[in-house]
Amino acid sequence: MATYPVTEQTKANRYAERASYDAPLIHSILLASPLTHVSFIPPSTSPDSPPTHPSTLPMLTALAPSPSSPSEKVIYLHGSSLSRLTKLCSTPSGLPVTLSTTLLDGYVLALSPFSHSVNYRSAVIFGRAHLVTSREEILAAMEAITNRLVPSRWENSRVPPTESEIKATGVLRVEIEGASAKVRRGGAHSERRDLKDEGVRGRVWTGVVPVWEEMGQGVEGGDNEVGDVPGYIEGWVRGENGRRRAWAEEGAVDE
Amino acid sequence: MATYPVTEQTKANRYAERASYDAPLIHSILLASPLTHVSFIPPSTSPDSPPTHPSTLPMLTALAPSPSSPSEKVIYLHGSSLSRLTKLCSTPSGLPVTLSTTLLDGYVLALSPFSHSVNYRSAVIFGRAHLVTSREEILAAMEAITNRLVPSRWENSRVPPTESEIKATGVLRVEIEGASAKVRRGGAHSERRDLKDEGVRGRVWTGVVPVWEEMGQGVEGGDNEVGDVPGYIEGWVRGENGRRRAWAEEGAVDE
Repeated sequence: MATYPVTEQTKANRYAERASYDAPLIHSILLASPLTHVSFIPPSTSPDSPPTHPSTLPMLTALAPSPSSPSEKVIYLHGSSLSRLTKLCSTPSGLPVTLSTTLLDGYVLALSPFSHSVNYRSAVIFGRAHLVTSREEILAAMEAITNRLVPSRWENSRVPPTESEIKATGVLRVEIEGASAKVRRGGAHSERRDLKDEGVRGRVWTGVVPVWEEMGQGVEGGDNEVGDVPGYIEGWVRGENGRRRAWAEEGAVDE
Repeated sequence: MATYPVTEQTKANRYAERASYDAPLIHSILLASPLTHVSFIPPSTSPDSPPTHPSTLPMLTALAPSPSSPSEKVIYLHGSSLSRLTKLCSTPSGLPVTLSTTLLDGYVLALSPFSHSVNYRSAVIFGRAHLVTSREEILAAMEAITNRLVPSRWENSRVPPTESEIKATGVLRVEIEGASAKVRRGGAHSERRDLKDEGVRGRVWTGVVPVWEEMGQGVEGGDNEVGDVPGYIEGWVRGENGRRRAWAEEGAVDE
């Protein structure tokens, strides 16, 4: 799938030039952060009182090939509030969910505060969440989520899991029904009026302060007996830090 | 206000020991990120088809004293999709919204993949969003949002705003009805079973990889005539980078 269909839900209404339905772009945003914000409409507590607010939970995610259609992607979720969600996702039709992931790439400082902005990448996914019940799919999802946190971590930790670990785990599979991305990248843009004002230009610094998620040196736990941080972790930290910094810095100027 | 009331919406159902209703903690999470995810239940397109999915938008925020009750806080929003939201927030009762802000502080690597976790700070706010119509409040909100992006930026950019800037701006004020935070901080914790297994302990590194939002050196725009990055920006970048790194690193071990 090269693009997701434009639906009533995903159609951009402002800054349409920043919107995209490109599947590889949307997937790259999901891959850039292990966290997503999962929103859903909670069930009514009584027929006379429909829900007013969505419920929202931050959860850990992984993007993986769909078990039923491997050329498509699904999103697996594993989080801290599964018990309530698990029930809601256990019906045959599943639970409609909206996922939102955003990365901040820079502070964009123009002459007027009203022309300030941020560089960012944001993906919103509309889908349906189902509780995963197959042993095989739970294992595949947990491997994907673990290796999404740290590449190669699954095979470098204590596997295979025990039966009780598998039974105690709640994994949700989100089938993607629609998705869109919004991206702002580039330098600060000021109004012509301000650019003509030499007094303002001589006084107000304009440009971009790049920002990225930096990882530090691994801090060993009290129980650790392995000694130094292993190469697969150290290489990942160094490589990611370099790529993330380059992405933010290169995005700070117009192409 | 020292704590927010525990409501049906904010009551923790899993990992209750990580949940908090402490107002200063919740405010500190909102202050730590300029972005929040705003979710709301969209209006029905027809009486027979109730909405299925929440709508979610990433938006820029600022926490500020409430104009009607200065000892309370409100949240101002200014984002990229205001035109649709603006209409929905223009009614006297406003629009119910759920805000979610999460900061990732570390990757927590235990012996078993099922004991892996992340260190994080997350706040979920249930509130009502109103379109701000008073000129004075729009100005105060835009000043708060601008200085939330970069401290002292408002007075160091081209102010006062023009009448057309004020008229074209959509600012929403969210009155907080309920709020909760979830926080995980500390080292990796493994199951007793795994800790007794010397083969596993001799092979699997355990600990925390700290992570924080790092800011780079300001990249000047093509229109910039001020030269070097001014001290109020450079000092902010340096100070924040140090504080954020220290927060993530100190959180990587048990207290």
